[in-house]
Amino acid sequence: MAKEFSTREENYSKWYNDIVQRAGLAENSAVRGCMVIKPYGYAIWEKMQAALDKMFKDTGHSNAYFPLFIPKSFFSREADHVEGFAKECAVVTHYRLKNSADGKGIEVDSDAKLEEELIIRPTSETIIWDTYRQWVQSYRDLPILINQWANVVRWEMRTRMFLRTTEFLWQEGHTAHATEQEALEETQRMLEVYAHFAENFMAIPVLKGVKSENERFAGAVETYCIEALMQDGKALQAGTSHFLGQNFAKAFDVKFASKEGKLEYVWASSWGVSTRLVGALIMAHSDDKGLVLPPKLAPIQVVIVPIYKSAEQYELVCQKAAEIKEMLENKNIRVKLDDRDTYKPGWKFNEYEFKGVPVRLAIGPRDVENGTIELARRDTLEKEILPITRLVEVIEQLMETIQRALFDKALAFRETNTRKADTWKEFKQILDDKGGFILAHWDGTGETEQKIKEETKATVRCIPIDDNMEEGVCVYSGKPSGRRVVFARAY
Amino acid sequence: MAKEFSTREENYSKWYNDIVQRAGLAENSAVRGCMVIKPYGYAIWEKMQAALDKMFKDTGHSNAYFPLFIPKSFFSREADHVEGFAKECAVVTHYRLKNSADGKGIEVDSDAKLEEELIIRPTSETIIWDTYRQWVQSYRDLPILINQWANVVRWEMRTRMFLRTTEFLWQEGHTAHATEQEALEETQRMLEVYAHFAENFMAIPVLKGVKSENERFAGAVETYCIEALMQDGKALQAGTSHFLGQNFAKAFDVKFASKEGKLEYVWASSWGVSTRLVGALIMAHSDDKGLVLPPKLAPIQVVIVPIYKSAEQYELVCQKAAEIKEMLENKNIRVKLDDRDTYKPGWKFNEYEFKGVPVRLAIGPRDVENGTIELARRDTLEKEILPITRLVEVIEQLMETIQRALFDKALAFRETNTRKADTWKEFKQILDDKGGFILAHWDGTGETEQKIKEETKATVRCIPIDDNMEEGVCVYSGKPSGRRVVFARAY
Repeated sequence: MAKEFSTREENYSKWYNDIVQRAGLAENSAVRGCMVIKPYGYAIWEKMQAALDKMFKDTGHSNAYFPLFIPKSFFSREADHVEGFAKECAVVTHYRLKNSADGKGIEVDSDAKLEEELIIRPTSETIIWDTYRQWVQSYRDLPILINQWANVVRWEMRTRMFLRTTEFLWQEGHTAHATEQEALEETQRMLEVYAHFAENFMAIPVLKGVKSENERFAGAVETYCIEALMQDGKALQAGTSHFLGQNFAKAFDVKFASKEGKLEYVWASSWGVSTRLVGALIMAHSDDKGLVLPPKLAPIQVVIVPIYKSAEQYELVCQKAAEIKEMLENKNIRVKLDDRDTYKPGWKFNEYEFKGVPVRLAIGPRDVENGTIELARRDTLEKEILPITRLVEVIEQLMETIQRALFDKALAFRETNTRKADTWKEFKQILDDKGGFILAHWDGTGETEQKIKEETKATVRCIPIDDNMEEGVCVYSGKPSGRRVVFARAY
Repeated sequence: MAKEFSTREENYSKWYNDIVQRAGLAENSAVRGCMVIKPYGYAIWEKMQAALDKMFKDTGHSNAYFPLFIPKSFFSREADHVEGFAKECAVVTHYRLKNSADGKGIEVDSDAKLEEELIIRPTSETIIWDTYRQWVQSYRDLPILINQWANVVRWEMRTRMFLRTTEFLWQEGHTAHATEQEALEETQRMLEVYAHFAENFMAIPVLKGVKSENERFAGAVETYCIEALMQDGKALQAGTSHFLGQNFAKAFDVKFASKEGKLEYVWASSWGVSTRLVGALIMAHSDDKGLVLPPKLAPIQVVIVPIYKSAEQYELVCQKAAEIKEMLENKNIRVKLDDRDTYKPGWKFNEYEFKGVPVRLAIGPRDVENGTIELARRDTLEKEILPITRLVEVIEQLMETIQRALFDKALAFRETNTRKADTWKEFKQILDDKGGFILAHWDGTGETEQKIKEETKATVRCIPIDDNMEEGVCVYSGKPSGRRVVFARAY
């Protein structure tokens, strides 16, 4: 079976695509750059949504919904934002079709041209801040703590399923505050939420930091981010939280009367993660046998495969399997009993291994007789025979063990693949030989970062949030530097 | 306070808009015909989503996600579908903007014109059936039971918040089956799910029936629907479930090898409900004092308002209120304690009455002393003083009582406003004097229905699913009829 699919070594990029498609996560659609998220892939996204949504609500946020369309003129309001976002967009110019003159199809009705074109939102700061203007008069109307689950469109030239698609699903938080301090705290709070989610649900260790000016969100004063390391040594930005200062408040004229009666501009944050996280999840843990999922985000945590020859055995084994399913479900474990007789056990073993189900149970007539069951772990591929009486306890424990093991493995990988570079030669050598995160001194200028990018494709992934100050000289320019930053090639 | 807002009698349409806006459910956006769904309105939609999503999953469906964009040519494939849906659509023609020559703004880049225009989905049958072609080879690949939560766009000329907006949120189920019988059963099963949801969650009684040919979904063989009656005597279609036959399978060439090895076209259903349900919920139960919500869908089921004069009293009362909140939350009741000292109790009473919170509790220092609390029901406006020891039990019971009372009231209203008409004069008289559902004989032709619509604005809402056959003559044409159907003016 493995032969049909690429290994990481053979072709990492093909390995990724094979997993996405063969595990039934997504596929390309008839529309360029847009994917279809298939039920199994969408179920992972639903698990992510549920966990994140709870964390957003626990930190005081409510969901709302703003229009898909943004009037073209809105983009011109915030000078940096327009540069960053108004370029590669889907533009709606007409609102009607008509039968074509030759009677063979339909065509755009030129009489139905919009006075002002509408842009499909690439992000919603503009339309939301235009709305907030009406919501905010006094300090009593603040803070506004809103999140939106939505689809957005950025016309990408080179797309890859989950990692970069023209349309994608995401959440975008947009908050408004009376003070700079409060907005900054919110920005950092949500970065912590994202880091907690990445590490404790996705089992992916992340670096927390701020972006360089070149990589900053268009319109932000400061962009905070979490950065993860993939198995091919490339970095992946897994979430961003932006401190927007008063930029959007000024662009959309959003002022409030303070307690002291002074009219002031509102302070803002915005933050988001997207279906790109599904791509990160796949690349962080999977192996040459297919997908590997952490239990907390696995749509199916345990699959039970009955082994039988005769109809009698089928009956006997499935009845026991159904009992076991119920026992596990009573402990809130997500179980699938695959009792289809149209597929053989061997086929099912391969299928669920490829789909990354954390635990597989197999039970045959002899097991029923002996009160035993075979348990296989997807992450380690270890098997053992257990008495059924111990099963629930073992699996409850295993859910935590596997979750932890995946995180530890990813952390060890990241530690092995984080290296210091003190010379330009060393920097390039590491990138070409091994990839990974490089800790290097940088002079802090956009020009140097740009030159490094041109020569090596590596960028500053983040300036870490920690106290590791260290004098040194820029690995490229030789100019003085107060601390090392994190470089990598990135998705 | 009531003076600021319309009553139903004064101006029903303004009354509806006043509730939507004043209760913080939604507002018009800067984009024509699109609304902003505000946190309180969105929270109701989330409750609806959660209940429906569970019912969809309990009946074997999975969620997935298909592209927002549909290639223009896809619409021409199914002859009826193109007539019904390809007309008033948002059309994407370009994929890039550029700085305008005068440097003052941005404009559409004419070099970035799409070869084939993309339509923002008004519904997704076409793109989904184009996808299903790849998924179905054999009977083993069937059934496909998929639902999608998504935004859709239909370019409406006259819009009303929730009831008819250019962009709206909905779910659309799209299923594929090996046999006609199975597809029909699915269509009917989902109609029952919708009816159950409307009656048991929304507390709105609905008529189940099938649509006349004129009102059928474009591309369907049969459209099943649930119809509700609003307080102004107009009907509202609250959900539809379509039996699509093999129409889309033929249009998109989706065939499967049957168990017998024959190549056959797949059978289909599709079904959907939308944010329009929020509009129905508002109109079904609310009164001249504002919104009234059934407990099962109320974002806040119980609000606690502390009554106090001094800081000491505030402390004392809020502490007790917090205890009560916890007691109720332990029983899974959604409670808000509004302890803001920036608003007075009287303001809060009005606020939550207007927002339709089913139960309001008020507690003052004397209550704390006596171990009592004041309870007010939103639906009946009744108040009583209770010992706190009985509170949890009373409120748990009350959640069910109110849910039931709202349904019973709506049912009584519908029964009072469902009338038989046996002559054309009577038919018109009822419509003009009272509205409501009219049970009348109809000759079954589209021409007659069209004429009745032109003369009275009433349409056949549905041909009920029941056994009440009765010979008679068409109220308009005098031709023979085998049963009464349901007429009404509708939203």
